[in-house]
Amino acid sequence: MNLQSLFRPKTMAVVGISKKNPLSPGRIIFIKNYFEMQVEVFGIHPEGGEVEGVNLFTKIEELPKVPDVLVIAVPAKATLDYVEQCADYKIPGCIIISGGFAEIGGEGVKRQQKLIQIATDNDIAILGPNCIGVYSPPLLDTIFMPTERITRPPKGSVALISQSGGVLVDQFFHKFNQIKIGVSTAVSIGNRAVVDETMLLDYFSKRDEETRNIAFYLEAFKPSKSRDFLQLARKSEDDIIVYFGGLSDKGKKATQSHTASLSGNEKILQAALKQNLITQPFTELELLTDLKLLDVLSRKKKPFDPNTVNNGNVAILSISGGHGVICADLLKNYGLRAVDFTQEEQQEMRELVNPVAKSISTFGNPIDLTGSAKDEDLEAIITYLSNIKRVECIIVLILPYTPSISFQIGRRIANTVTISKKPVVCFIPYIPKYGAITEALELSNIPVFHSIEEAVQGVSMLKQKTRIFNAKRSQS
Amino acid sequence: MNLQSLFRPKTMAVVGISKKNPLSPGRIIFIKNYFEMQVEVFGIHPEGGEVEGVNLFTKIEELPKVPDVLVIAVPAKATLDYVEQCADYKIPGCIIISGGFAEIGGEGVKRQQKLIQIATDNDIAILGPNCIGVYSPPLLDTIFMPTERITRPPKGSVALISQSGGVLVDQFFHKFNQIKIGVSTAVSIGNRAVVDETMLLDYFSKRDEETRNIAFYLEAFKPSKSRDFLQLARKSEDDIIVYFGGLSDKGKKATQSHTASLSGNEKILQAALKQNLITQPFTELELLTDLKLLDVLSRKKKPFDPNTVNNGNVAILSISGGHGVICADLLKNYGLRAVDFTQEEQQEMRELVNPVAKSISTFGNPIDLTGSAKDEDLEAIITYLSNIKRVECIIVLILPYTPSISFQIGRRIANTVTISKKPVVCFIPYIPKYGAITEALELSNIPVFHSIEEAVQGVSMLKQKTRIFNAKRSQS
Repeated sequence: MNLQSLFRPKTMAVVGISKKNPLSPGRIIFIKNYFEMQVEVFGIHPEGGEVEGVNLFTKIEELPKVPDVLVIAVPAKATLDYVEQCADYKIPGCIIISGGFAEIGGEGVKRQQKLIQIATDNDIAILGPNCIGVYSPPLLDTIFMPTERITRPPKGSVALISQSGGVLVDQFFHKFNQIKIGVSTAVSIGNRAVVDETMLLDYFSKRDEETRNIAFYLEAFKPSKSRDFLQLARKSEDDIIVYFGGLSDKGKKATQSHTASLSGNEKILQAALKQNLITQPFTELELLTDLKLLDVLSRKKKPFDPNTVNNGNVAILSISGGHGVICADLLKNYGLRAVDFTQEEQQEMRELVNPVAKSISTFGNPIDLTGSAKDEDLEAIITYLSNIKRVECIIVLILPYTPSISFQIGRRIANTVTISKKPVVCFIPYIPKYGAITEALELSNIPVFHSIEEAVQGVSMLKQKTRIFNAKRSQS
Repeated sequence: MNLQSLFRPKTMAVVGISKKNPLSPGRIIFIKNYFEMQVEVFGIHPEGGEVEGVNLFTKIEELPKVPDVLVIAVPAKATLDYVEQCADYKIPGCIIISGGFAEIGGEGVKRQQKLIQIATDNDIAILGPNCIGVYSPPLLDTIFMPTERITRPPKGSVALISQSGGVLVDQFFHKFNQIKIGVSTAVSIGNRAVVDETMLLDYFSKRDEETRNIAFYLEAFKPSKSRDFLQLARKSEDDIIVYFGGLSDKGKKATQSHTASLSGNEKILQAALKQNLITQPFTELELLTDLKLLDVLSRKKKPFDPNTVNNGNVAILSISGGHGVICADLLKNYGLRAVDFTQEEQQEMRELVNPVAKSISTFGNPIDLTGSAKDEDLEAIITYLSNIKRVECIIVLILPYTPSISFQIGRRIANTVTISKKPVVCFIPYIPKYGAITEALELSNIPVFHSIEEAVQGVSMLKQKTRIFNAKRSQS
């Protein structure tokens, strides 16, 4: 099957465009792609005419070229006829937005079986039905929400595949946009009658140049396909993340009603994911932290080797005692530990800082340089820590509210880390006026988080990434 | 001791104003209050003259009136002389920003003992030393960070008391400002040589009209004062929240070095707090959720009685299956449960929604009205759920990305809840364009959170609040 036609089409046609209702899904998809995206798009309406000043064709036959993909947003009963036309005209891909298939039971189940039959017989890559489609910037966007209602994430390295359309556009799109996690392609798989998560893992892992990390929101694996999925994940060169919803009893009941699927035993599932080198976040925050870190570290210019955090031994550098305490408290929850410094090391660090800070700083771990610290003190201590072999990663808590820290601190830390090559994860409060500092760090691809907990999660992710990297290397 | 002089002074004097360094703490405090706050402020410098165009006095004697509070930001050695002058001139309150006391050991310990002696002999309310002071909008702000470097929370019902200055201005001020939690007064207690957390609990609980909720960041109780603190908390009519930092082994070590205090056994502490009707959040997110909820529900116009969530029985209302699943998964983690609906109730709810949604919605718990839901469907179901007695609280997951939901949805839910009086907690994504919906809900004092987890935490907080309310009522 030609999955590329779904995600990297040159031409696209849309059926199900209402002339009366500007908010009908088909019309939103058509108009949005026509005015906002790069794909060449054709609208089809049996009567022809126009919507919003754009001409419509009356049927597929009339189109100037055979499109790579047909988006179907007509009522369920009319869908199969269009799928058959895909076969007739050799359209390789088809995205079915329409609901009214297996999820409603009865006749819907039969309709879905027929759909699978046509797809299989004619080798058509069908996404859906009952899905919200594909977002593949800057090419196409079949998410049928009005542009003014949603936010869209930037371009990046993460292929994002979701069994829930709502979770995709809200939990992912909004937050990806807010904390700037970039996607290569985002896919809503709906009922996954034909194209399922395993095929997509295969495709994005082996055949999509832009993808480096593949993230899934699933409520259950497609029956009989979990084994293939796990094997593919284990062998993939990309980082694979699977976030499962519906693992609690109530959650399970809910997923049964809205996706007609069963999730397996939680513990077995957890073990299987771990064994097959898949990262499983347990909270949404963990998922976002993972993806933020992976996306930043997938860029070409790497400030450090992310696969060197074998044991999770951390140094914490702060200019506020309380922040250091909160950070130290969190390490244990994430399987990390603070390195102990010898008296000699502590004395050596003390000699590196300005006279005022020198007399009041503490060099245990967390290191607290106090509100008297200057930019160069942070630089000097980061460089010193980078040379201690048992320090695998440094968490720098940047608090640019004291006047002795300048707004060049981001650039200066970035320069220091780029030279020292030691993994560094930064925390900086999420405030617009600190944006310049965050930007300077992110330009050098140094991971920046906006809560202490996320910074700690980020380091635990580096540890996990190192484990998976080593396991994959030893098996190959 | 006259604590009011520290938090509600009419006049204030500042010593330690540098003429050379515009970023010296004393000068920042003087200039900030002079230009930005309501308190009448006098600057003192032995040479007189002016800074930034504002005249300075040469000594306390020269001031036109005896100030209510003296802010001391001179080097440690010079502090005691000024404290003695407070005694001489009957200045009732004193805020000592300067470090160089017990926290540095040796002579610092002796200096602090002398300070306590003078304060006790002369009944002076001394805050600090080694603190960053008081923020009491719109009256005074002795936080010595430049205004352009920090953010400040709005005015509200929460008295905020922190043992760490850094945590106060970063973790609290920034986040309070971001999610709009209002403070009555924020206090950094530093070494708490004289004024300590127990005295502040007493003061804010009994003598401050503006405070309804009292939140603490502590790394340990002041030795020998924990018993008083707990007893006062138990009897207080306000909600008391204590967030402890430094409970892990590494955290403990760190707090010893930066505050010279010991935290007790974690389990004993936890039990003591619970028994004395104090809320103890275990993560920063939980703390913020608690305070947001308490601040909103402290306002005069209450949309519902917050003390009715006895068992934590919840109904989840969503228009996205995946969101409902994630929410249901989270309930268990927070000691809550989803109410089961009878077949009859489910059928009755189905009859209430529009024909398209009717055919595809599911009315288990979570209720999923699907992307076809309209504003009036949400109103109808909220009203229906409000009449089911065993539903103690409704979580409404508002996802205004579907075109069939209008931007009036906030106002409409607010109206419905104001009539039905059932506790409701809303989730809405944190996106500027949804601000109008959030505003409409918050104007009616309905709690709104920006992640599903926070909404669930919010309900668990209502359950906790109900428990504490009932216990306090039965003891009085």
